[in-house]
Amino acid sequence: MSQRALSVSRMTGNRSTFAQWYQAVVREADMAEPSPVRGAMVIKPWGYGVWEEMQRDLDRRIKETGHENAYFPLFIPLSFIAKEAEHVEGFAKEMAVVTHHRLKNIDGKLVPDPEAKLEEPYVVRPTSETIIGDAFSRWIKSHRDLPVLLNQWANVVRWELRPRLFLRTTEFLWQEGHTAHASEKDAVEETMRMLEVYRVFAEETLALPVIAGEKPENERFPGAVNTYSIEAMMQDGKALQAGTSHFLGTHFAEAQNIRFQNDSGELSYCHTTSWGVSTRMVGGVIMTHGDDDGLRLPPAVAPRQVVIVPMLRDKPEDAQVLEFANGLVAALRGQRAFDERLRVLLDTRSTKSADKRWNWVRRGAPIIVEIGPRDAAGGQVTFMRRDALRDGDKIRSQALPRDAFVAQVPGVLAEIQANLFKEAKARLDANIRSDIATFEALAEYFGAAGDDDDGGEFKGWVRASWCKPSGAELEAIDVRLKSLKLTLRNAPLVQPKSFRPCLFTGKPGVEEVLISRAY
Amino acid sequence: MSQRALSVSRMTGNRSTFAQWYQAVVREADMAEPSPVRGAMVIKPWGYGVWEEMQRDLDRRIKETGHENAYFPLFIPLSFIAKEAEHVEGFAKEMAVVTHHRLKNIDGKLVPDPEAKLEEPYVVRPTSETIIGDAFSRWIKSHRDLPVLLNQWANVVRWELRPRLFLRTTEFLWQEGHTAHASEKDAVEETMRMLEVYRVFAEETLALPVIAGEKPENERFPGAVNTYSIEAMMQDGKALQAGTSHFLGTHFAEAQNIRFQNDSGELSYCHTTSWGVSTRMVGGVIMTHGDDDGLRLPPAVAPRQVVIVPMLRDKPEDAQVLEFANGLVAALRGQRAFDERLRVLLDTRSTKSADKRWNWVRRGAPIIVEIGPRDAAGGQVTFMRRDALRDGDKIRSQALPRDAFVAQVPGVLAEIQANLFKEAKARLDANIRSDIATFEALAEYFGAAGDDDDGGEFKGWVRASWCKPSGAELEAIDVRLKSLKLTLRNAPLVQPKSFRPCLFTGKPGVEEVLISRAY
Repeated sequence: MSQRALSVSRMTGNRSTFAQWYQAVVREADMAEPSPVRGAMVIKPWGYGVWEEMQRDLDRRIKETGHENAYFPLFIPLSFIAKEAEHVEGFAKEMAVVTHHRLKNIDGKLVPDPEAKLEEPYVVRPTSETIIGDAFSRWIKSHRDLPVLLNQWANVVRWELRPRLFLRTTEFLWQEGHTAHASEKDAVEETMRMLEVYRVFAEETLALPVIAGEKPENERFPGAVNTYSIEAMMQDGKALQAGTSHFLGTHFAEAQNIRFQNDSGELSYCHTTSWGVSTRMVGGVIMTHGDDDGLRLPPAVAPRQVVIVPMLRDKPEDAQVLEFANGLVAALRGQRAFDERLRVLLDTRSTKSADKRWNWVRRGAPIIVEIGPRDAAGGQVTFMRRDALRDGDKIRSQALPRDAFVAQVPGVLAEIQANLFKEAKARLDANIRSDIATFEALAEYFGAAGDDDDGGEFKGWVRASWCKPSGAELEAIDVRLKSLKLTLRNAPLVQPKSFRPCLFTGKPGVEEVLISRAY
Repeated sequence: MSQRALSVSRMTGNRSTFAQWYQAVVREADMAEPSPVRGAMVIKPWGYGVWEEMQRDLDRRIKETGHENAYFPLFIPLSFIAKEAEHVEGFAKEMAVVTHHRLKNIDGKLVPDPEAKLEEPYVVRPTSETIIGDAFSRWIKSHRDLPVLLNQWANVVRWELRPRLFLRTTEFLWQEGHTAHASEKDAVEETMRMLEVYRVFAEETLALPVIAGEKPENERFPGAVNTYSIEAMMQDGKALQAGTSHFLGTHFAEAQNIRFQNDSGELSYCHTTSWGVSTRMVGGVIMTHGDDDGLRLPPAVAPRQVVIVPMLRDKPEDAQVLEFANGLVAALRGQRAFDERLRVLLDTRSTKSADKRWNWVRRGAPIIVEIGPRDAAGGQVTFMRRDALRDGDKIRSQALPRDAFVAQVPGVLAEIQANLFKEAKARLDANIRSDIATFEALAEYFGAAGDDDDGGEFKGWVRASWCKPSGAELEAIDVRLKSLKLTLRNAPLVQPKSFRPCLFTGKPGVEEVLISRAY
């Protein structure tokens, strides 16, 4: 039997079993499971609880920067998608198409009613630039109507052939911001502002260190002038694109006639932006903070920050244990952390208390308290910190007098949050190599890293100078990288003053880019 | 020009123009608008803001009663729907059907790719009993797993031929609760508990007086054993079903094999429930509280409870006005109402201040403050209460010293909330007739009320005794009622001890039911 709470480790011997480990965490931490709908997942209460906390925090940040929420239709008329050529190219291949609006029982079988075929099919939104742009074209008349700063929380559908829970699912949940501005300058500022909101959200709330930068041309959102991303490093060294912000120029405005009358009475096209973060971020939290005992949740997004497991034995002492536990819950709920009331749970399920403890370890509750008759009698609290669960192989637990524990919990949670970030930041910093200067060296370095799935070593990222080529030259580089299963992640916003020669062409370098395997 | 802020009144002369008025409020209060997708609406920021406040409040009540949120797929395999016969019958006629998963450019036209036709079509969820039941059948093994108490916030789609914004739209937003229990008793208790949660939510939070009761057999949810509803009276006397709670017995459990091992080791079917409230409720708030100046929002769900309009004239005094206004905003944000921080807005848009005032009147902000140079200099606040906007035709405003205003706002908001409820409750109580004892009298009473749309008088509801027939006898009654455009709403939970003869058949009465026109 495994010494650890989880059925699969990140490494088995010196072989990576990270992909299997990820599946095990998602399942054994009760986060999500596959559904009978191809590529779509069921998000279970614990996983959805994490998403709710993320939503609440990010929603506040989006509103504080002046945006309002609204809601637009799930369905998009096919003709809308057809209007923006690059957009079609980028999305047309993976959309769910609604063709009928009624079912009929024909020969005992339920089928789409041939008489209820739609004149124009609808696609289920893969993203909402076109349907929201249509509204913008009606709402915006004058420069006085600008800027329009909207956000939508919604489900979207993109057909996935190789789904992976949270990371790539046919249906996923996200927020998508959509804004329109009078000038290019305003729109570019908005694009960068929201990228920064995402960076701070990832680092402060999810304890995910990220690098913000611009995507290369071949990785741009279909129809965008510039696409920016935040990239996070998973424990297997791969990159996860955790959020994107797009400057769309006047592309969508021209396709959909979003115009305003400027000061001098002339009609101009608006400059628009869009930006989004999705349930994929939950996968990023799992792959960044999880360990061989399961998930470790940053307290800021843990649905329950303190879980209390009473050790009940169907004996008279149980009453005293429960009384003490209930008192503790009440006292803790009076405390605050991260500017919210503490989220505390007393787990009274009728399963064995050892099973409950391990369940909460796997789920990654930040502080797990076990209360037995002796604790209740002595007025003390014995607890484990999920960020520092073990001393070698042994479980580490601490005891404090009740009042001291209640007083210290907010500080302990802040410490756990900071520790998780520090640990991930150290890993990110230690695993970006800047000393690889040629494609051959790159090939040699990653060549040994095995394939996309398990088995390889953790190689991290390479930061290299390049000449920022475009068009066919960039395509050729992309093909060479793909042969090593590598991709260009982004060109970090923070750049040095001078550059080495381009890793790919030997020409003078103009920018540094991040190169890595990715999800 | 109209004396009122809105372009259409509820009555024009002695003719009802309520339907036109409703459309005008939705449009002129910036709540929602039709979309290019047939029957689906765009919910604009002010309308969505109301929904967000409703969500937040109801979500808290749902969690306080022990439920957790989760998320299930948007798409449902056709075969799932086919499993429950009554359910098919009830929903099969109005569902969006996804048949392809890719588009293709054929002869320059974007069409569903014939090679990407799904083997089994998916329907877009009209409700999620079947897809959630499938998960229940996997999750529930033993009586220890019960009860399962889940809720989902989601969009659903039901094809509507006669859409009306908020009230009947092809896509709408809602929450749907789904629970599974070991015993019939537990499931019935849950059904009634959630009905009561809805009643309290409607009355306390939305200031909507409602009558809770059981739907007659012909109005049951497809597949339910019993359906309960809360019914609200709109200002035109029609009923709006504002929330429903269903006891599903073992129907869905049998169709989907949701079973558990009981204490004695035998397999039993679970008893399940489902319950939901939707964006339709926003329509109910509009039609209950609106007046001829527009919307009046209950403060508990107003996205902004206090709106401050600075009267700026491009003069040096503007700086002082803005400074005073900003100070007021800061002071108000330190206050709380309805257990939340006050929601305050300083409207600095560059439109005329009179236009802004009328915009907020139409949108129904509970307290509207106007600050001019004289207010700023004198340290006083001049404000209007939206629940008592006029004295005859004249606008009524009050002035208070700044600190007194800040201190009194929470109390004033509570008073507005109470007033709106009181007004609506008085209307409900005054418009239920209990003295109509025969179908002929019923026909005579409602016969003069004109058709379903504008033009008729406001007739309210009739509360009558009946013999609670079923099957064909009930169908016949339903047909007779439909000829008068009437429906049976529900049999109120609170019933008298004795009954008059059945209004429809003259047989001994066993129950009182509500009869009315309805949305």
